Amino acid sequence: MGEKSKILFIGATGYIGRFIVQASAKAGHPTFALVREKTVSDPAKAPIIQSFTSAGVTLLHGDLYDHESLVKAIKQVDVVISTVGHAQLADQDKLIAAIKEAGNVKKFFPSEFGNDVDRVHAVEPAKSAFETKAKIRRAIEAAGIPYTYVSSNFFAGYFLPTLAQPGVTSPPRDKVVILGDGNPKAIFVKEDDIGTYTIKAVDDPRTLNKILYLRPPGNIYSFNELVALWEKKIGKTIEKTYVPEDQVLKNIEETPFPVKIVIAIGHSVFVKGDHTNFEIEESFGVEASKLYPDVNNTTVDEYLNQFV
Amino acid sequence: MGEKSKILFIGATGYIGRFIVQASAKAGHPTFALVREKTVSDPAKAPIIQSFTSAGVTLLHGDLYDHESLVKAIKQVDVVISTVGHAQLADQDKLIAAIKEAGNVKKFFPSEFGNDVDRVHAVEPAKSAFETKAKIRRAIEAAGIPYTYVSSNFFAGYFLPTLAQPGVTSPPRDKVVILGDGNPKAIFVKEDDIGTYTIKAVDDPRTLNKILYLRPPGNIYSFNELVALWEKKIGKTIEKTYVPEDQVLKNIEETPFPVKIVIAIGHSVFVKGDHTNFEIEESFGVEASKLYPDVNNTTVDEYLNQFV
Repeated sequence: MGEKSKILFIGATGYIGRFIVQASAKAGHPTFALVREKTVSDPAKAPIIQSFTSAGVTLLHGDLYDHESLVKAIKQVDVVISTVGHAQLADQDKLIAAIKEAGNVKKFFPSEFGNDVDRVHAVEPAKSAFETKAKIRRAIEAAGIPYTYVSSNFFAGYFLPTLAQPGVTSPPRDKVVILGDGNPKAIFVKEDDIGTYTIKAVDDPRTLNKILYLRPPGNIYSFNELVALWEKKIGKTIEKTYVPEDQVLKNIEETPFPVKIVIAIGHSVFVKGDHTNFEIEESFGVEASKLYPDVNNTTVDEYLNQFV
Repeated sequence: MGEKSKILFIGATGYIGRFIVQASAKAGHPTFALVREKTVSDPAKAPIIQSFTSAGVTLLHGDLYDHESLVKAIKQVDVVISTVGHAQLADQDKLIAAIKEAGNVKKFFPSEFGNDVDRVHAVEPAKSAFETKAKIRRAIEAAGIPYTYVSSNFFAGYFLPTLAQPGVTSPPRDKVVILGDGNPKAIFVKEDDIGTYTIKAVDDPRTLNKILYLRPPGNIYSFNELVALWEKKIGKTIEKTYVPEDQVLKNIEETPFPVKIVIAIGHSVFVKGDHTNFEIEESFGVEASKLYPDVNNTTVDEYLNQFV
C-alpha cells in the first residue's frame, strides 16, 4: 500500500456527503471539501461545517458553477467524490469538464448512492431521475475518466425508522402499507457504512471502472420479512394493507410532485425489486461485503433494535 | 367578445395539466395537446388520453425536445399553456425559443400553479425549485412574450385529504403534526377550479403580463383554523404536535431527497406564510375571485365534507 489518495468532495454538506467525508477523514485520507461562501455562512450548515473542521477536513472555497475554482481544487487531489443533490445531478457535466481539463484524477465517483440506474424498471418521474444519473455515467465513460459507481441501495437511516411509511418517525406498531405483494428483496445500508465502503474502494484497483454494489447479507430483506422481523421484536402483529401494482401506478399518476417521485421510487424497489432482481457480473460489478469482509457493518436486525 | 382563442397544452397529461385541459374544452376553446408517441402508447396514460378525445381535444404528436414539432404545433394556436412537470421546468427555455420563432402567440402560461416564486422565503431544496420557475419568468420577459403567471397556491386534492400529513389518505382523527406555530395562512384550491380560473384568464386583457393569484376567501386557512374546522366537523379534538422552525430546518437537513423537498415546501408555506405574506399590487398582479366572481368555486369547508 502506498500513500492514501487525497480526496476532494463536491456536495460534502449534503445528506449522504457528510457521512462519506467523515469516513474519508477517519480512514486517514487527506480530505478536501469544496464549499460555497453561502454554505459556510448558512446557520443551518454550521454544525456540519464545524464537524468537518474538527475532523481535519480542508475547506476549499468554490462552486460547481465556477469552472476555475473546480479545476484549481481538483489539481490539489487524486480522487473526486461527488455527492451533489438531485437538483445538481445533471450539472455534473461541469465537473466532468473540469476533471478532463485538470487531467490528474485517478478516480471519479459521481453522485449515485442508490439503485443501479442502468438496471431499473422504473416509471416516471423516477425513470427520468435515474436516467439523469445514467447520462452522467455515459459522459464519464465517453471522457475516458476512471470511475467507480457506488450502488448503495436504500439509506437505512431514512427508511428503517419508518418501515418506508412516509410521514412517520418510528416504525409502525398498528398498521403498515406495503406496495405490491411484499416479496421482492430490498437492501437497507446504514449511512456510516455507505461511507466506509465507499472510502475502501478509493484506492482499490478491483473497483476501477466498476459498479460497487453494497449487498451485505444482513441488510437484504423483503418488505414482508422486514415487517415479520419488526413484529417479532415488538411481540405484536401489525395490520398489513397490500397495494397491488396497478393501484400503485394509479397513485403515482394522481399524486403531484414531489410525493409522486417518492411513490415511483417505492414502485421500482418494492414492486419491481430493482435492488436485487439481477446478478452482479464480473464484467461490470463487484460486491462490497465480499471485497471488505473486515467491515463490521450494521445489519437491519441490529438497526431496528434502537426503536423497540 | 370575439372568438375564443385556440389553446395548445404542453404537459397535458400531468397532474394539473389534465384539469386545465378539461376546463379549456368545457369553456369552448379549440383545445390542442402536444403528446409524445410513448405517452399515447403508455397504458397508465390511456384513461387520460381517452378523456381528452371524448372532450374533443385534438392530439398533436410532438415533444418538448423536438423544436420543429413545437413550432409546427404552436403555429396552429393563439395561446400556449405549459403544465410540464418538475423535471422539465428548466427545459421550458426550448418552448420559449419555439414561441419566439413561431411569432404568433398572444399569451404564454409557463408551468407554475403554486407559490409566487418571486415572493418566497424558502430554504433548499425548495429554494432552487422555485428559482427554476423564476428563471423561466425572466426568460419570458427578456423575450418579450406576453404572459400570465398563475399562482394557484396549494392543490386542494393533494393537501386537504391528509391535512398535509404525508403518507395518509384521509384527514387524521387522532394526531396531527403542525410545522411552526400553525398561524400563517395558506391557500388550498380545488384542481378543477384552478382549471376554470386559468382558462378565464386566457382571453382577459386584465391578466396580460400579470400574475393571476388564486385567493378565494373561502380557501384561505391557517393550519390551526384548518384543524379547528375539521375538529368541528368530526366532533372530536385532535392531538396537535407543533414543530418549531429550528427543528423543521434540522429535519430538512437530515432528510434525503425527495422527502426533503416536501418538508422544505411545507416550511415555505406553513412556517413562512409564503402564500399570503404579501399584498397583491396592481403593478404586478390581479386576484382571480375578484376578476371572476361568477365562478362557483369549492371552498375548503365544502371540500372537507366528503371525508367526514
